[in-house]
Amino acid sequence: MTAVTGDDEALTTPDLALRRARELHERDGTCAMLGITLLDAGPGRADVAMQLSDTMVNGHGTAHGGFLFLLADAAFAFACNTHGPVTVAQSAQVTFLRPARPGDDLRAEARERARSGRTGVYDVTVRRPADGTVVAEFRGQSCTLRQRDT
Amino acid sequence: MTAVTGDDEALTTPDLALRRARELHERDGTCAMLGITLLDAGPGRADVAMQLSDTMVNGHGTAHGGFLFLLADAAFAFACNTHGPVTVAQSAQVTFLRPARPGDDLRAEARERARSGRTGVYDVTVRRPADGTVVAEFRGQSCTLRQRDT
Amino acid sequence: MTAVTGDDEALTTPDLALRRARELHERDGTCAMLGITLLDAGPGRADVAMQLSDTMVNGHGTAHGGFLFLLADAAFAFACNTHGPVTVAQSAQVTFLRPARPGDDLRAEARERARSGRTGVYDVTVRRPADGTVVAEFRGQSCTLRQRDT
Amino acid sequence: MTAVTGDDEALTTPDLALRRARELHERDGTCAMLGITLLDAGPGRADVAMQLSDTMVNGHGTAHGGFLFLLADAAFAFACNTHGPVTVAQSAQVTFLRPARPGDDLRAEARERARSGRTGVYDVTVRRPADGTVVAEFRGQSCTLRQRDT
Repeated sequence: MTAVTGDDEALTTPDLALRRARELHERDGTCAMLGITLLDAGPGRADVAMQLSDTMVNGHGTAHGGFLFLLADAAFAFACNTHGPVTVAQSAQVTFLRPARPGDDLRAEARERARSGRTGVYDVTVRRPADGTVVAEFRGQSCTLRQRDT
Repeated sequence: MTAVTGDDEALTTPDLALRRARELHERDGTCAMLGITLLDAGPGRADVAMQLSDTMVNGHGTAHGGFLFLLADAAFAFACNTHGPVTVAQSAQVTFLRPARPGDDLRAEARERARSGRTGVYDVTVRRPADGTVVAEFRGQSCTLRQRDT
Repeated sequence: MTAVTGDDEALTTPDLALRRARELHERDGTCAMLGITLLDAGPGRADVAMQLSDTMVNGHGTAHGGFLFLLADAAFAFACNTHGPVTVAQSAQVTFLRPARPGDDLRAEARERARSGRTGVYDVTVRRPADGTVVAEFRGQSCTLRQRDT
Repeated sequence: MTAVTGDDEALTTPDLALRRARELHERDGTCAMLGITLLDAGPGRADVAMQLSDTMVNGHGTAHGGFLFLLADAAFAFACNTHGPVTVAQSAQVTFLRPARPGDDLRAEARERARSGRTGVYDVTVRRPADGTVVAEFRGQSCTLRQRDT
């Protein structure tokens, strides 16, 4: 009856979750284009990293918020697909807390917060590991499209 | 008393608003990098366009949601800076309504909804003009940092 | 052209939409408890009103934001159910722009912004009609549970 | 180490945080009206509880989402004011995960996630302690108006 819980979940071992995230990352043209690396993943979680390039700026000279969102969204996508079924972002919200700048190494850490039926809620923190500051806080709502096929 | 209304606003003619948006767009490295063009702007509004490239995809083969957000965020940034003062995104929310695909020409239309003190609320619709379908709906909350200097 | 799909929608005349909103409002215990009136409704839209009582305050002495949200949420619920099928709120976002105070007469106006499949996006403005000021801006995402039964 | 600023923070002992939350709760007309109790509070966190009454329903017979938001918003307000300065909600987002029903005892637990300057981000989980299920997930963005006066 439920779309994503039950027996499938019992099969989402840490190894399987990491394998699923890696496969999705390998097929992700955006991650290849922007140099987003997958650092780690487990059931309902994923960590990614990206270095802000000189061109990723807005007209004010700071990092374009769109790339901060995109990095968080990438972590979110890997985290919510670790369970197996094809899962997509339905909506997301982001709060920008501090400006980031070209050259900054950023990390986004996605963690599952809740799931019910086909809906999941994930929190993603975007931080600059060099000094530990939080750059942005993201929350995404996922929707499972169909049962997993692996 | 209020930070952004009053005499300044009287000076925000359509011509001046367009000029401000254009200057910001010219300094925007992200727009140059991704081919985001500024179609039009006026007081509290801006329209931008972008073609989705083959690399702007996620692991499922559809457009990466991060780029849909980024396009809306760019329109939002131009719209909220047409009043003059340096204004930044404080938070934003996006709902993904239909998948977009490589090759799609997309347009994002930002419109001011309300302003009070240093806070503004802007709606941005991301659509595919070819068939008129809405791909995503975005809402951004802006924060004015300081009075305009032009 | 229309945001709305299928044969059902052709049947959503203004009269039918208003009747559906009224029936839902009559069964709504919260509206009865708080004195929320249904002013008007049509396909994809609804207007409601409420007077802030002396007890609807927070510890700072201004209107509790929860009641501003609740009023917007009520308008949203009526608007998204005018099409017939049982439809519920899946998520919502609110920005508080100006404080409201006990005794204020408030109005919430919900308008459909987009729909795709089972998902709808609605904007609700909460204003004080006495002086026209906007108190809060709300955006809700609806989910249709099943086809309409009227 | 902490995101939070100045000498004030050093003074926010657990005892002082709880006292501030209690004082705010005592002046809160909405909490008195709806029977919202303050269970606990500490620096950057607060737990509240409420029983859903028979009148807190919508036209579909389930708990009105507005009251779920309101309960979370109350916990958020207490949590973000534990630091001392007058702090208000600037915006908030909620995802409804499972329906709640009249008679349900609900609990909302607010936790600070990040702070920078005058902006704070708080997560609030609304759950039914009887069976542990999560009813709603809330995220609020706070704005500090002025320095604390205690």
